[in-house]
Amino acid sequence: MNPTQLELLSEQACFGGVQRYYQHASTEIGLPMKFSVYLPPQAQPGARVPALLYLAGLTCNEETFMTKAGAQRWAAELGLALIAPDTSPRGAAVPGETENWDFGVGAGFYLDASQAPWATHYRMESYLTAELLPLLTRSLPLDAGRIGLFGHSMGGHGALTLALRHGDLFKSVSAFAPICAPSQCPWGQKAFTGYLGADPSTWQAHDATALMGGRSGTPYPGGILIDQGLADKFLAGQLHPHLFEAACAAVRQPLTLRRHAGYDHGYYFIATFMEDHLKHHARQLLAWA
Amino acid sequence: MNPTQLELLSEQACFGGVQRYYQHASTEIGLPMKFSVYLPPQAQPGARVPALLYLAGLTCNEETFMTKAGAQRWAAELGLALIAPDTSPRGAAVPGETENWDFGVGAGFYLDASQAPWATHYRMESYLTAELLPLLTRSLPLDAGRIGLFGHSMGGHGALTLALRHGDLFKSVSAFAPICAPSQCPWGQKAFTGYLGADPSTWQAHDATALMGGRSGTPYPGGILIDQGLADKFLAGQLHPHLFEAACAAVRQPLTLRRHAGYDHGYYFIATFMEDHLKHHARQLLAWA
Repeated sequence: MNPTQLELLSEQACFGGVQRYYQHASTEIGLPMKFSVYLPPQAQPGARVPALLYLAGLTCNEETFMTKAGAQRWAAELGLALIAPDTSPRGAAVPGETENWDFGVGAGFYLDASQAPWATHYRMESYLTAELLPLLTRSLPLDAGRIGLFGHSMGGHGALTLALRHGDLFKSVSAFAPICAPSQCPWGQKAFTGYLGADPSTWQAHDATALMGGRSGTPYPGGILIDQGLADKFLAGQLHPHLFEAACAAVRQPLTLRRHAGYDHGYYFIATFMEDHLKHHARQLLAWA
Repeated sequence: MNPTQLELLSEQACFGGVQRYYQHASTEIGLPMKFSVYLPPQAQPGARVPALLYLAGLTCNEETFMTKAGAQRWAAELGLALIAPDTSPRGAAVPGETENWDFGVGAGFYLDASQAPWATHYRMESYLTAELLPLLTRSLPLDAGRIGLFGHSMGGHGALTLALRHGDLFKSVSAFAPICAPSQCPWGQKAFTGYLGADPSTWQAHDATALMGGRSGTPYPGGILIDQGLADKFLAGQLHPHLFEAACAAVRQPLTLRRHAGYDHGYYFIATFMEDHLKHHARQLLAWA
């Protein structure tokens, strides 16, 4: 497979647009990677549309968002493309990579590992920012200047951190139940120790709360939207949105953090508030006020 | 497990209502059966809502519709409950029942088998009409006088045939890519031979086209809605909507059969037209014109 070649795995009509699954030989990952794209009816040659990159949570893959979140209906109405990558390399053959549901396969944490044996293939940050997005904006009718970023749980961590680390690439950001301070929770500590090493000082560059705390201005003046369910069993131990909230307040970064009674960590919660997220991004990526 | 007892397996907030999964000991099936229910915010003690029974296709289960179809958003807006049963008994231990994806487990065809060894447990018609619906309208704030019925593929066959066989139970009906004339297609012939025996004369009572052809009036004066994708690989060989269309025309049963260029047999197709189906049912089940 040619590194720049996209292999179309499937194509299905959906809300007047088209749902596609692709595979390609990733040079950053060093392995084949799959991803999915939804192109709304407004995406045509000569009419580039804004696109939202969605990062999924632990154990998910490139299908989860497209089959469960109900986002295409709103993407078709608003004229937004959707891109959903996988959550880690597959088939890297790192010893033990499939033994944990929260580390290794399905749990790439959207960073470039610095520690052997992970550093060779576990390079999701460079894969997304330096390879996949440039490839897609070259290959499809997407506007490279109007890309938004969002995600769920581990993917919410990915959205917040990549948005803060690559402000030139992303014009809008939101998250569902994100891991907001991974340096201070078991999921994050386990992943960062494995991928980045035991020294917590190296973790801060991949911790949304720490990254926001180090800012002097407001990287997203249009505001960040976060939805969090109060019946989410991971809220108290893993997610810590209050820490990110305090960090945003300290630097006057506008944040809408909505806490919803009764909602849990799953895709019924995500689907419920998907319309609001797509409209949040549309307000910043499209011309309407 | 008490036969009349519903065991709540899970409950999740969803679009202001609640998504539930249940298990119960079915007397008609003679085995535990799972099903899912979505209750919209309007469903409250003392405020019974209309309900739609959705029948899924081959290989699906009680989760498929609730996770992939995006129906809850419209059900919440319209005030409709949703009920999704499994597609067959599970664990009946009939020899060979898991060897075929289109017969046996996951392929009950929504009828009562008359042939050994299937007749003992494969009784999906009696299960749905004589057990599950009465149980749910007793146990939940659902209006037994306002039940609609719809489904996909094998479940579209189930919806059309059960609607015609039990007109007293169902007030509205629609289908996505239904098997319209099972006596005349390989899926139906295989299933009917196994469940009902080799004599095709016994099949007619479970064939939507034959059932409609035997009518003298219009069982659903509010009209039947069917959506069919023209890129559906099963259309030519298995589905035969033109035969049901002709049968409806012959008895002046109003039918809206929409043929959609580019759409296939999957849930992206179903999700695309879900809003129209829920509004079709709402027009007949609710007071608004």
